[in-house]
Amino acid sequence: MPTEIRRAVPSDAELVRTMLIELANHQDQGEYVTASIEDWQEFLGRHDVIVLIAEVDGTAAGYVSALRRPYLWAGGDLLALDDLYVREQFRDAGVGRTLMLELARHALPDRLTIAWGLRLENEAGYRFYERLGATLVTKTAASWSPATYQTFLTD
Amino acid sequence: MPTEIRRAVPSDAELVRTMLIELANHQDQGEYVTASIEDWQEFLGRHDVIVLIAEVDGTAAGYVSALRRPYLWAGGDLLALDDLYVREQFRDAGVGRTLMLELARHALPDRLTIAWGLRLENEAGYRFYERLGATLVTKTAASWSPATYQTFLTD
Repeated sequence: MPTEIRRAVPSDAELVRTMLIELANHQDQGEYVTASIEDWQEFLGRHDVIVLIAEVDGTAAGYVSALRRPYLWAGGDLLALDDLYVREQFRDAGVGRTLMLELARHALPDRLTIAWGLRLENEAGYRFYERLGATLVTKTAASWSPATYQTFLTD
Repeated sequence: MPTEIRRAVPSDAELVRTMLIELANHQDQGEYVTASIEDWQEFLGRHDVIVLIAEVDGTAAGYVSALRRPYLWAGGDLLALDDLYVREQFRDAGVGRTLMLELARHALPDRLTIAWGLRLENEAGYRFYERLGATLVTKTAASWSPATYQTFLTD
């Protein structure tokens, strides 16, 4: 099966959001996807949002999303990978690897470091990223919601 | 000691970079700070780079840096906190907390979630962020350098 990779455009908003919801549901996190199709139309029109769609025989098989953002330690930018997803029926066929390599091809001209987070239980992900030579370090991810920090802002 | 917080401007580039180098050296990571003063002049002129400087009696006591970036799951933006640093002689005086609360004040009008990473060995950081009500989840941080991914791009 030849895999074609193309950069998503605003008219792909519904498709990308559908695959994001599939990914989130697969991780029992569907409730956290609240972005609308309109939000995604706007995201996909931005130069700093890079979404690559993999198609196998014309059918969407998966995607990778990334944000180009300033890299305050190193100067210049880094590419913050947000999600990598391959639909169930297309797994174990190299689609994820093809997506990662195409993302690397986007990052290479400016030699951007690519960085992302990984859930500890994602053991297949560990092996996958190690085979690509990624450096993996255990950390803690922190988040502070508006509902929480608002309670500290009393004046 | 009253702590004054102000948003950094391009003319603060040298000061912020100096404090970033102090922070990195404190973590034995000084070699990773390669951003120049010119890089920092550019960063501090961007609307999506938010750096707040704490001053105590007119002396810079610390800073917090954050990036406003698209939040692909939720729609809108999130605030990615990059670094929080308080100089040694100003520690244990509430400067870090004041910086975090001022950052929250920036995030509140648009109800932005604030998110960041934490090294596992940063035990004082855990307690500090827990007192602020932050949600902490252990994850793995992955990075893929140009020197590494280039070796996979053979065509």
